[in-house]
This record gives sequence, C-alpha cells and structure tokens, in this order.
Amino acid sequence: MTAELRFVGLVESSLAGKDEAPKQADEGAPPATLRIAAEYTACCEGLHAGDEVLVLTWLDRADRDVQAVHPRGDTSRPLTGVFATRAPVRPNPIGLHRVEIVAISGAPGEPRALRVDALEALDGTPILDLKPVLASDARVR
Amino acid sequence: MTAELRFVGLVESSLAGKDEAPKQADEGAPPATLRIAAEYTACCEGLHAGDEVLVLTWLDRADRDVQAVHPRGDTSRPLTGVFATRAPVRPNPIGLHRVEIVAISGAPGEPRALRVDALEALDGTPILDLKPVLASDARVR
Repeated sequence: MTAELRFVGLVESSLAGKDEAPKQADEGAPPATLRIAAEYTACCEGLHAGDEVLVLTWLDRADRDVQAVHPRGDTSRPLTGVFATRAPVRPNPIGLHRVEIVAISGAPGEPRALRVDALEALDGTPILDLKPVLASDARVR
Repeated sequence: MTAELRFVGLVESSLAGKDEAPKQADEGAPPATLRIAAEYTACCEGLHAGDEVLVLTWLDRADRDVQAVHPRGDTSRPLTGVFATRAPVRPNPIGLHRVEIVAISGAPGEPRALRVDALEALDGTPILDLKPVLASDARVR
C-alpha cells in the first residue's frame, strides 16, 4: 500500500549539506524562504506575517531503510527505534518544523515566497504542507 | 516532482465515517489502536506507555484538489487557503495528531499494537510516522 506525494514548493536556505544542519531549529537554524509553486498559492490565502505555522517537508536526503539509531548520533546511547527519535532517517522522512512567518511576498496566482525565522532543513528540500499551530499542539499535559 | 509514501500501519478506531469524526481530538475523539506492521516494529523500540507522541497519518478519504475552504465548514466564514486551516482536504492530506500512548502490546518482530488515548482519524487510516513530542513543539511564544 502506498500513496504519492505532491511537492508544493521548495525550501531556500543557506544550509547546503547535512553536516551543516543543526539537529533542531532552536540549536542555531538560519532563517529560510519557503518558495510555494504558482499552482499551490491559493492554499496560502489567509496566512499572514506573524503567524506560527507547522511546515511539513520531505527530507529527500534521508535514508528510508534505517529503523533504529543512536539518538543524536551519540554511540554511547543505545540503539533506539526511529519512532522514538526525531532523526531524519525513517520509513517516511517527513520533517516537522515549527516556524514563524516573518514576511510574505508574491501576488495571488504568482509563486509565493514565505520568509520564516528559523528552519533546520537543507536548501532544496521539498515542502509538503503548512498547518496553523493549534492550542492543543502547544498544551503541556 | 513526487515521492512515494510507505504505509507502516493502520488506525483501528470506532470512527467509521467522515460524519462521525470530530474536528479535533479534544472535541470528543475516541481512543484508538495503532496497528504497526511487522516489518516496521523495530521502529517502535524505545516507545513506552505514558509517552506523548505525534502520529502522522495519510487521510486517504480527503479530497486533494481543494485549495480553499470555509473554516470548520461554516459558510459564514470566508474561503481560506487550506494551509491556514487544519481541514483534512489539502494537496498532501497528512494528519497530525498528538496522542498519549496508553499501552503497547506485541513482542519484537511481531505486529505491534499501540493503544492511544484519543485520535480523530477514521478506522483504516494509514499511518506514516510517529515522532516524540519535543519541548520546542510545546512552547508557547
């Protein structure tokens, strides 16, 4: 069983290779631009500068056949299933990034560029989806 | 440009059809079971009852060609791009659900069943990924 993804845009970032990428956005990720393809810009209506959104990306340089890792690459830590870690390697390497939209450019029907504050995704990473942050995402139970 | 998803398991739920599904888990979603296929159970090592995880699902009954909706189906509200809503309809209908694992059954190498507290996904919905909740997901800025 399977399904096919549609790439709705690409990340533009100063992060060119895996060695440069921080493990998480709050560990020094640079600002980035989400370039949304013209055919998907209608999906962006209603987004505004200042909004916090979740960006879903396709981590296209991640190994899909690794099922367990040493967390954060620390071999002193035991091998752990990837579902219990945020490692990019996993059967479906979908990146989940919480960002703030700093600015939006482009008119309706044109390619849209969303500038975001900090994103730990490599330059050229495909974008799958954006979602607004809900209170229930942020709750601490 | 595209990529192919792998379904790692299926949701087992009392929610049979779209009309029964609440809009969000905190609006009355029932408990559910995540049935992980035997070939992906190694990904689950390190998950424990009591863990809070994000479940990514493939909302296979959602229309992928709708780019704008009236939020929450309320036609008095203006049409809004799907990236500014949590509607299931979107180019890549990936569901994002925060749940608590209540119990885990199944030995390594066997299909694994993860019982979760509340999930707003229909019975038979494919599972794409699980990720631990990070402090940065939960922060309120």
